[in-house]
Amino acid sequence: MRAPRHRAELTEVTRGTPMGELLRRYWHPIGLVGDAGEVPHKVRALGEDLILFRDAKGCAGLLHARCCHRGTTLYYGKVEEKGLRCCYHGWLFDTQGHCLEQPCEPQGGLFKDKVRQPWYPLEERYGLIFAYMGPLTKKPVLPRYDCLETMDAGEFVEADDTSLGGGGPAIIPCNWLQHYENIVDPFHVPVLHGSFSGPQFTTMMASMPQVSFETSPRGVLVRSTRRQEDGKVFARVTEAGLPTLRVVPNPRVAEFARVESIGWVLPIDDTSFRIYVAGRVKQQGDIDRMRSKFNGKFWWDMTEEEHQRFPGDYEAQVGQGPITVHSEEHFGQSDRGILMLRRVLQAELEAVAAGRDPIGVSFDREAPSVVFEAGNFMREA
Amino acid sequence: MRAPRHRAELTEVTRGTPMGELLRRYWHPIGLVGDAGEVPHKVRALGEDLILFRDAKGCAGLLHARCCHRGTTLYYGKVEEKGLRCCYHGWLFDTQGHCLEQPCEPQGGLFKDKVRQPWYPLEERYGLIFAYMGPLTKKPVLPRYDCLETMDAGEFVEADDTSLGGGGPAIIPCNWLQHYENIVDPFHVPVLHGSFSGPQFTTMMASMPQVSFETSPRGVLVRSTRRQEDGKVFARVTEAGLPTLRVVPNPRVAEFARVESIGWVLPIDDTSFRIYVAGRVKQQGDIDRMRSKFNGKFWWDMTEEEHQRFPGDYEAQVGQGPITVHSEEHFGQSDRGILMLRRVLQAELEAVAAGRDPIGVSFDREAPSVVFEAGNFMREA
Amino acid sequence: MRAPRHRAELTEVTRGTPMGELLRRYWHPIGLVGDAGEVPHKVRALGEDLILFRDAKGCAGLLHARCCHRGTTLYYGKVEEKGLRCCYHGWLFDTQGHCLEQPCEPQGGLFKDKVRQPWYPLEERYGLIFAYMGPLTKKPVLPRYDCLETMDAGEFVEADDTSLGGGGPAIIPCNWLQHYENIVDPFHVPVLHGSFSGPQFTTMMASMPQVSFETSPRGVLVRSTRRQEDGKVFARVTEAGLPTLRVVPNPRVAEFARVESIGWVLPIDDTSFRIYVAGRVKQQGDIDRMRSKFNGKFWWDMTEEEHQRFPGDYEAQVGQGPITVHSEEHFGQSDRGILMLRRVLQAELEAVAAGRDPIGVSFDREAPSVVFEAGNFMREA
Repeated sequence: MRAPRHRAELTEVTRGTPMGELLRRYWHPIGLVGDAGEVPHKVRALGEDLILFRDAKGCAGLLHARCCHRGTTLYYGKVEEKGLRCCYHGWLFDTQGHCLEQPCEPQGGLFKDKVRQPWYPLEERYGLIFAYMGPLTKKPVLPRYDCLETMDAGEFVEADDTSLGGGGPAIIPCNWLQHYENIVDPFHVPVLHGSFSGPQFTTMMASMPQVSFETSPRGVLVRSTRRQEDGKVFARVTEAGLPTLRVVPNPRVAEFARVESIGWVLPIDDTSFRIYVAGRVKQQGDIDRMRSKFNGKFWWDMTEEEHQRFPGDYEAQVGQGPITVHSEEHFGQSDRGILMLRRVLQAELEAVAAGRDPIGVSFDREAPSVVFEAGNFMREA
Repeated sequence: MRAPRHRAELTEVTRGTPMGELLRRYWHPIGLVGDAGEVPHKVRALGEDLILFRDAKGCAGLLHARCCHRGTTLYYGKVEEKGLRCCYHGWLFDTQGHCLEQPCEPQGGLFKDKVRQPWYPLEERYGLIFAYMGPLTKKPVLPRYDCLETMDAGEFVEADDTSLGGGGPAIIPCNWLQHYENIVDPFHVPVLHGSFSGPQFTTMMASMPQVSFETSPRGVLVRSTRRQEDGKVFARVTEAGLPTLRVVPNPRVAEFARVESIGWVLPIDDTSFRIYVAGRVKQQGDIDRMRSKFNGKFWWDMTEEEHQRFPGDYEAQVGQGPITVHSEEHFGQSDRGILMLRRVLQAELEAVAAGRDPIGVSFDREAPSVVFEAGNFMREA
Repeated sequence: MRAPRHRAELTEVTRGTPMGELLRRYWHPIGLVGDAGEVPHKVRALGEDLILFRDAKGCAGLLHARCCHRGTTLYYGKVEEKGLRCCYHGWLFDTQGHCLEQPCEPQGGLFKDKVRQPWYPLEERYGLIFAYMGPLTKKPVLPRYDCLETMDAGEFVEADDTSLGGGGPAIIPCNWLQHYENIVDPFHVPVLHGSFSGPQFTTMMASMPQVSFETSPRGVLVRSTRRQEDGKVFARVTEAGLPTLRVVPNPRVAEFARVESIGWVLPIDDTSFRIYVAGRVKQQGDIDRMRSKFNGKFWWDMTEEEHQRFPGDYEAQVGQGPITVHSEEHFGQSDRGILMLRRVLQAELEAVAAGRDPIGVSFDREAPSVVFEAGNFMREA
């Protein structure tokens, strides 16, 4: 009898682990644009404790929380014109970790050029702040996405940090892969969101689909089709793009169109994650209005028995445990998307270990926006 | 100086440990009959997370909590006519773990006969649900006990799950053996329940007894006698029966008679336990009315200082720590019952390791009820 | 890349560790005189759980919490005329751990001379109870300190157990050395207590001092001077005396005089500490009136953002983590006091390992009181 175990190489995210290094080759959203300000803001991402701030020039910075001098957290630091000053001995760091002042040292610090506070590059886009936490020589271009660049009339992009799509609170206490795999699992929809708690979405989503899975240039693509009573075919295309992108059209199928939002699953650490979303909307608050209700209630207003009777993605995924026990799984035909996604991830782990760049990274500043096929579509049969 | 340590082989209960395997050769109560219903009910026993339910035929089932498909807890499952359905992909399991449906799979599941959800046999008796968590080929008969079968006029059996006899709340945060040993420790009664907090029971129990210990066919038997002022002898017989039976007559000595109830100490895991009780009563609620008060209050209403001034079994046993440190104990004559019980347990660990059946198990469905000698008796000298 | 690590030999305090053994060669305050009474009082010191009480003769006792019989905590014991009686089987221990009674044993205990409850010698002085937790053959004299012995007119000694000087609550959740090192770090004062949250003390303390560090017969001495506008020199002398003494004059500089109080940093365990203080006062409550306010509020009344904007010693030291990561530190000239203190501690670890007595211990009952140079002084230039 072998002891039950999880696949550490696919799930664990700290620096130096295989997946930790793969994830660090991509940009990740770590906050809303408004999170960077004049009060230091805690960020935890990929198992690292970080401090986000914005200097007087408007430049956002993300530094390791522990001051490189004596280890005090910069959370209690003071944001100044040129950077963030540690509360303990006043070392001042700019957004790139340069030490500008050491006020307790002779002549304001003779060795301040010899120390550097660990820092990460940031870029702001779509209302989000993206960080690159990998080796600087490997820093790719932050991609642009056509679905957030090309607007229909009256549309604009809105960002959200409440883990919309996670089915529960903003911080979700299980491994990120349990959620990420769910994106390529269209079969759970008519069960979990249909016969159990539903239809949570539209009745159109409540029947069992015909599904094909294929690899995309960025990950795994899922095509689900459902023949309608009028003979037309409702086609839904979903993609899991590396590293953690949820390219999932609105499951309420408000319209038949290309995907309207992207979600990024941020691993906080090995046993918790959160989701950032950016989407095209016509009214402020539209994204938040996509939030699911269960039995007419928001998740946090439900009783324990209501959580049992109307479970959603949160219950199903957190119910797999902090990290699911992969050695005890039994897969079927309907799980092919998950197996395909794990193979893609495994291949990219090997690519990085072999010194290659993983899929989906680009170093070309002139590269066109990424166009996703994802969307809800109604087709003649 | 050797590091302090506990006796793992006597105390730890998970699958694969010596005591875990010994305990798994017996039936254990894991709930009240009413706990199995149409809402999945969490059970934790011997370190395993389980889900209890009852199908539409009235048959109770106890399944591993993690669905054998993808590991989601069946706590969020739906109880249906034929079994329990997982919320995530709808696999349906009967009370014996057979997979009846895999609705996301082609043709309803072509390999469903090849998977089996781990499950345990149940039997219901005395208001309790008993589970057998050991190898099926070794499953003994669930014993009948004369003290719960042979009624006096107007009596019936009532069950309780509040850890009556534990001296505190329903879930007690220390190793089960600390409580189990207490059963063969009659000397603590005049101290802990007498000069400290008492007399909690009757004054008849408040004096130091004459005690003899002997092994019984099921464990260890304790005979305590106290000569009364009128020359008669108050004789009290108590038994610790394997695996975890408390055969303890009412310490309030309401009458001089055979034992009126049995308690089963269920190890929840290595560092917590609970007690199920079944007893003969004449009025509904009689068992709960046996609950001890301290300084006129229930345990949960006491202040911290009252717990200090009026300690009971909970304080004494939890006060030994999550698992007591056996290497630091110093035994006396009055501890012979505890040493005897440990030797009995040790012998049965060896029996099981050698492939023999432990004491007290029977495979004979026609076996007569077990008769305990335990009780409070008044005898002429 | 080496894994980040802390210096275990300098920080960890349990029995058998290098620092644990060094600390156990000194007396430590473990309570106020009033903590020892007729209700058993929990003490945790150097990672050990202990029970403090006072017998009817007025003698204070400090015993290991676990009864040497069966391990039940003596916290639920009863204080009697001759000692502390365990609640479980009534063994009675005097203040030196002698077992006086074993009421459940034949003839009151035939082997009670063969067991001994672990105990520690106590002495009461300056309103505090001091314990010696090391080998009895190495027990030094409890030192007298001139600053608490020689009174000015109207003065008396008052004791405090609220971790005054720690900048927060009574129990501070980080390693003791993070606080102890702070004593020899005068440069943080104008930053943390000045430009950040201040001036918390006087404006006189708000400027950057000239500092010299030197070893003293007991540890490390810090001389800070600040030239005043009138040409005089404000000289402040501070000392960190082994094992954990804070010899720190009032930072509010109420008067120019020798130090008025001593603080002892008690390591509760590896990741928490508390501070006991004894000081000369003229009014009852004077010590507590020295407590710092931040933005006009006590620490426990501040909002999260106020803690960020007005950090003090608590935030700076707890902000280094449960045990700081020494391998990631970068030292400057201003940190020479800390490096000197670590070298002194390291040397004394080696002294003890080599069988020598560490500095500052004396076995001479007639030795004069220890005189500290510490104080705030105003000198002509």
